Amino acid sequence: MSLDPLIIKIAKLQNPTVLGLDPKLEYVPEFIRRKAYDKHGFTLKGAAKAVLEYNKGLINALADTVPAIKPQSAYYELLGYHGVKVLARTIEYAHKAGMYVVLDGKRNDIGTTMEAYAAAYLGGVKVGDEFIQPFGCDAMTINGYLGADGIDPVLKECKQRGKGAFVLAKTSNPSSGELQDKTIDGLAVYERMVAMCEARGAEIGGEFGFGGLGAVVGATYPEQLAELRAKYKSVFFLVPGYGAQGGKASDVAKAFDENGLGAIVNSSRAIMTAYQKEKCDERDFAGAAKREAVKMRDAIMNEIGVIKIK
Amino acid sequence: MSLDPLIIKIAKLQNPTVLGLDPKLEYVPEFIRRKAYDKHGFTLKGAAKAVLEYNKGLINALADTVPAIKPQSAYYELLGYHGVKVLARTIEYAHKAGMYVVLDGKRNDIGTTMEAYAAAYLGGVKVGDEFIQPFGCDAMTINGYLGADGIDPVLKECKQRGKGAFVLAKTSNPSSGELQDKTIDGLAVYERMVAMCEARGAEIGGEFGFGGLGAVVGATYPEQLAELRAKYKSVFFLVPGYGAQGGKASDVAKAFDENGLGAIVNSSRAIMTAYQKEKCDERDFAGAAKREAVKMRDAIMNEIGVIKIK
Repeated sequence: MSLDPLIIKIAKLQNPTVLGLDPKLEYVPEFIRRKAYDKHGFTLKGAAKAVLEYNKGLINALADTVPAIKPQSAYYELLGYHGVKVLARTIEYAHKAGMYVVLDGKRNDIGTTMEAYAAAYLGGVKVGDEFIQPFGCDAMTINGYLGADGIDPVLKECKQRGKGAFVLAKTSNPSSGELQDKTIDGLAVYERMVAMCEARGAEIGGEFGFGGLGAVVGATYPEQLAELRAKYKSVFFLVPGYGAQGGKASDVAKAFDENGLGAIVNSSRAIMTAYQKEKCDERDFAGAAKREAVKMRDAIMNEIGVIKIK
Repeated sequence: MSLDPLIIKIAKLQNPTVLGLDPKLEYVPEFIRRKAYDKHGFTLKGAAKAVLEYNKGLINALADTVPAIKPQSAYYELLGYHGVKVLARTIEYAHKAGMYVVLDGKRNDIGTTMEAYAAAYLGGVKVGDEFIQPFGCDAMTINGYLGADGIDPVLKECKQRGKGAFVLAKTSNPSSGELQDKTIDGLAVYERMVAMCEARGAEIGGEFGFGGLGAVVGATYPEQLAELRAKYKSVFFLVPGYGAQGGKASDVAKAFDENGLGAIVNSSRAIMTAYQKEKCDERDFAGAAKREAVKMRDAIMNEIGVIKIK
């Protein structure tokens, strides 16, 4: 299994992009917020309900074009447990719409605690006689600072349930180099992470040549993307930083191999707030999102050609 | 402010320990689980209700002895939004009991996303005309792999609201050395993190000589603890790994300075499951936890003497 379900969806839609669902409240169209606040007051519940309606609108509009969503956990946690409830509902809704779900929480811990994170997002928990899946995502992002003790429990869960994970390697932000670019025994820290993904990801190898442990590499570092692509052929990349952060289609093209495989590119803000940029009626927020998502797909597909799986 | 509210509580109770609230379901006494499941069925809500009652019992028993709690977010997330609701209730309950709260979530991200994490746990969110604090913790643990872009937003929130944070440096697990012990320009990665905590933590310096940015250093690495204590006098340490993981009182003693200041030592399992080890009536779980917590306090205080603040 590994990341194969994602790769199959990408190939089917001929679209290697993922919709980042980072619902800042100021992104949510006014009419949606007003309706929720009228009903629930200026409360976390009201804010969370508004986010859910917004997310559903975006998913409805994009599910036939974009293969996956990547909800950013921080924005749901910011709305307390009401937000976390909406995260679960969003995941469920996206699954019903046929989309793959990568939870972006960058979790990290050790031993049984990391097992709990993996179980929470990829697996489930035994409550009395019942086995319950609280979130049921398809993949999650993790941070490898703690070493194998933070990776093993996730790999175990992935193997058992046919799920995948993405380890932070070279993040898209300006200060990512402070630690990630430093060289240890001739290898940059970010490359060590990718090498680890290759070695450990092979434990859950997929049918299309990619292991179950992907790596996060920012679109803002196209040189590193190109080098890593050439060297670590079996590591699938999750590429943030396209659009608003500065990454261009020609930059992210470097993350793909000769079959148009090997990466999925995230865009959050540009798609979610396309209606603001277009200055269209905010009630057309989902239409604007779709137009932006199609533009992004076309720009990237124009660079990489066709996506071929065997 | 910085970490001063914590230091004041530690000195008042003459106890530099923190109760790790990592509520695995198998830790929760049978009679509490049964009651919750009878009422709510084998559901996440039932499990979460059981955890809340267990946590309250522990807090009631320990609040006059132990200055702080450190809930481990993973175990609450594992119970879905019901678990996250119980996390919020637990924090509220501990605050009413006068305890300091460190959320152990090891969060990490960049820019506005890291702002959202900091706002979620240390600050609040503007919903319409209201400013709402979803969790209202006093401090949180963070992971510095992404560089300053992941630290700045937390520092800003800390400054604004008198809160603190702890950055992962040398974690307590066996594989922590894979990255953390590697040397870059003559300095181990974990030491670079502590040096960063010293430099940046000074931006929110406290009255007792410690900055607002503490560091996580495991009890299982006493040599590193001693070296770091000697070299980075203004960095306050959060020390996991005592007890079940193998750290002894003589090990953690190395984290303290000549005034008995500079660190807080976490214990989770040994205290939470003391009733299992004692084989006492499980209805005395809180009493057993208190006995274990007192034993831990006495063992550490016996090593460090008196805790003196000016």
